[in-house]
Amino acid sequence: MADQWARSGLDLHLAIDRAGGVRAGLEQALRTAVRDGRLSPGDPLPSSRALAQELGIARGTVTQVYEQLTAEGYLTSRARSGVRIAAQARPAGLPSLPPASPFRPPAGGVDLRPGLPDLSMFPRREWLAATRHVLQTAPNQAFAYGDPTGDVALRSALADYLGRARGVITTPEHVIVCAGYTHALRLICQALSGTVAFEDPTLQDYAALAERVGLRVTRMPVDADGLVVGGLTDESAVVVTPAHQFPLGVTLSPQRRRELLDWAGRAGAVIVEDDYDGEFRYDRQPVGALQGLAPEQVVYAGTVSKTIAPALRIAWIAAPTRLVPVLRAALRFDEAYVNAIDQLVLAHLIRRGELDRHLRRCRIRYAQRRDRLGRAVAARLPGARLSGIAAGLHAVLHLPGADEPAMRERLAADGVMVDPLSGFYRQPRQAPPGVVVGYATPPQHAYDSAIESLIAALAGR
Amino acid sequence: MADQWARSGLDLHLAIDRAGGVRAGLEQALRTAVRDGRLSPGDPLPSSRALAQELGIARGTVTQVYEQLTAEGYLTSRARSGVRIAAQARPAGLPSLPPASPFRPPAGGVDLRPGLPDLSMFPRREWLAATRHVLQTAPNQAFAYGDPTGDVALRSALADYLGRARGVITTPEHVIVCAGYTHALRLICQALSGTVAFEDPTLQDYAALAERVGLRVTRMPVDADGLVVGGLTDESAVVVTPAHQFPLGVTLSPQRRRELLDWAGRAGAVIVEDDYDGEFRYDRQPVGALQGLAPEQVVYAGTVSKTIAPALRIAWIAAPTRLVPVLRAALRFDEAYVNAIDQLVLAHLIRRGELDRHLRRCRIRYAQRRDRLGRAVAARLPGARLSGIAAGLHAVLHLPGADEPAMRERLAADGVMVDPLSGFYRQPRQAPPGVVVGYATPPQHAYDSAIESLIAALAGR
Repeated sequence: MADQWARSGLDLHLAIDRAGGVRAGLEQALRTAVRDGRLSPGDPLPSSRALAQELGIARGTVTQVYEQLTAEGYLTSRARSGVRIAAQARPAGLPSLPPASPFRPPAGGVDLRPGLPDLSMFPRREWLAATRHVLQTAPNQAFAYGDPTGDVALRSALADYLGRARGVITTPEHVIVCAGYTHALRLICQALSGTVAFEDPTLQDYAALAERVGLRVTRMPVDADGLVVGGLTDESAVVVTPAHQFPLGVTLSPQRRRELLDWAGRAGAVIVEDDYDGEFRYDRQPVGALQGLAPEQVVYAGTVSKTIAPALRIAWIAAPTRLVPVLRAALRFDEAYVNAIDQLVLAHLIRRGELDRHLRRCRIRYAQRRDRLGRAVAARLPGARLSGIAAGLHAVLHLPGADEPAMRERLAADGVMVDPLSGFYRQPRQAPPGVVVGYATPPQHAYDSAIESLIAALAGR
Repeated sequence: MADQWARSGLDLHLAIDRAGGVRAGLEQALRTAVRDGRLSPGDPLPSSRALAQELGIARGTVTQVYEQLTAEGYLTSRARSGVRIAAQARPAGLPSLPPASPFRPPAGGVDLRPGLPDLSMFPRREWLAATRHVLQTAPNQAFAYGDPTGDVALRSALADYLGRARGVITTPEHVIVCAGYTHALRLICQALSGTVAFEDPTLQDYAALAERVGLRVTRMPVDADGLVVGGLTDESAVVVTPAHQFPLGVTLSPQRRRELLDWAGRAGAVIVEDDYDGEFRYDRQPVGALQGLAPEQVVYAGTVSKTIAPALRIAWIAAPTRLVPVLRAALRFDEAYVNAIDQLVLAHLIRRGELDRHLRRCRIRYAQRRDRLGRAVAARLPGARLSGIAAGLHAVLHLPGADEPAMRERLAADGVMVDPLSGFYRQPRQAPPGVVVGYATPPQHAYDSAIESLIAALAGR
């Protein structure tokens, strides 16, 4: 009895937070006492009458709390032994964990790594206005489980937009909305079998993804005309970046386009066209998508990650007819991940011409930046040269004869982040010396000084 | 020569849409002529001078168009033979395709299928206000590639909310934001091996998903105390719905909770707690999550699909410490799919108490609906009985002795959609006769007449 009293309310220092009500406060206080170890498995609790008296609350409240915590497994209640702390009621505290590694380590200084648009251009006002429109007009049914291939409003807007802006031939039923290019590529890989060829250099993670879903991977070299098609044999598919090879920045030449389509026809293979920054060409009109020449041989994949922002997680596939059922089947277990509101927002922005206006603003800015980079290199880095066409969000700065470790050291010392070209090659030692410069990455006000820092570090001052 | 002239502009009926400029219009007109078959592979085109004259446009424009279409692979240009249509330039037209099968076939009449909240309660105003706040305050960096485990603002808000509302013990670093429960379950399954037990009855698709990622699957029966734990042996994991079993609606009893934790401790197994509608209990306070008793043994998974709307595609995992690195590794190829804006919006709604207010409104409405259903059944369906606790968004209506095919026929004839209980059993013939009624599904104004139709169809009028 003394033991029971010693463990009752006041002695336990049950700090009851009454903000959410006495009952919730007492429940929480008892849970905390168990977790902190002030109450141990097997310990008896005072009777509901005794605890109620001590705390000055209704006995019914204590009874309800005891019932609740018994239902949750914290307490046991037996006829003769009364209410006790249950055997499993004391969970170990959770240790602290480091945060997850980010996709891109944060920039400590000047960030000129490729892969990002200028995020200060994100169309905040337009996105909000479109969200208002969607939330004011969408039927309730839009908030249910949607079409697994994406909302038909977005698929229709995309089919029209891709036809107009990229020469893609498709229909809304051939389009699948995805949650970013990685999701698109995984879905496509699930529809393939055998061996898939990737460009070399490229982002090595994509080949790893294909291997992860059970495909074999080969690599094909890239030259000034883009992918070297002659090396392809009996692969079931090839992943290419025809508009603006990543990272080399070349365009797949007309001759190579023909060769590639010929090969795919002979081999019965699929061409996966990664059109990740096809909207951006500064010297003349963008070259239309390869898909437009052979919509039944090419799986086209695009994304808003480079045109608007990666944080939106929206991409799309325009698939050949025979792959549509396979892709739809893959969606059963790797489903539609894109918030329906966001899909309707993007559809509205496309239909209203806002995406086109945004792209025009971006093109003007990026063209100026590329130009500025080119002039600085020409004037102050003798022997260096920018390669690739005037397109996209990045350029390769070739540095013939440069000592890569020393160069990296100077860049690091000056706090300038660019990606060495070698990191995109399967055999980094086969890469020519150079760096990939993401000229869209810095905010506008910091661009000139970013280029200044880059040139200074590379010139060795 | 006559041949060339016959194929020139006017004879080709090149309808040039000048809205986007003459150049873009001519390009599009030529592409269309190729695709329609009016121009065939090998056909010569008029010289740029001749075409320009005929169309009354600048010769330079025609030259540019020819160059562009040559780069895209539509045309070939040789010194002596002039410009011709390229060999691969005529893609087959795409056939029309049926739309994808929806996750839920659309309702033709009265929709009382389980799985949806009342979508007319979607907090449109609050979602828009939170979006405005986020778009006005988020730093540009929020639009980049984010933390693959989810934005820390949302993970922190969730850790607090889950602790407060569901008794979950976790930290922001133990939380992973997912794009819906299916994504969460796939990530969890990728972190497991061996055999996983599922409840029977349950949604059969989840077991299929586990098999798809290479796990073996067993089924454990469910009785009035929830999952029958005694059948578990050396499984590596079990997936349970302790708060409100789906579809039977029972709560996992205190005794079974203890047995389950004992088993998991002995077997070194993981308990996957699917807390899909744990927020909704109408007769008294919700039973806290099992996870709170054993946060290092239980992987907790929750979602907004039942509390706000499935269209948002947001869910979460609170994982035991030892599984966090494995889950983070799985994210490399099955990445963060949730728009960062939406993550910040949900975090804001949780922090501002809007989610709690929304849940209170929903609880009141759903409690009334369940009550209404119960009274109608008691009064007008003698022999029938509602089972399961007063919680969640659905109830099981047991119809002892009912002839299921005849019952289905009557329901279909009256246009009433409910899910037969048998559909959730691995062996449908072992199911007791009954239907699962999703009483949250109809909009408020249609609820009374929906129940009326259901009762009428089941009573055979």
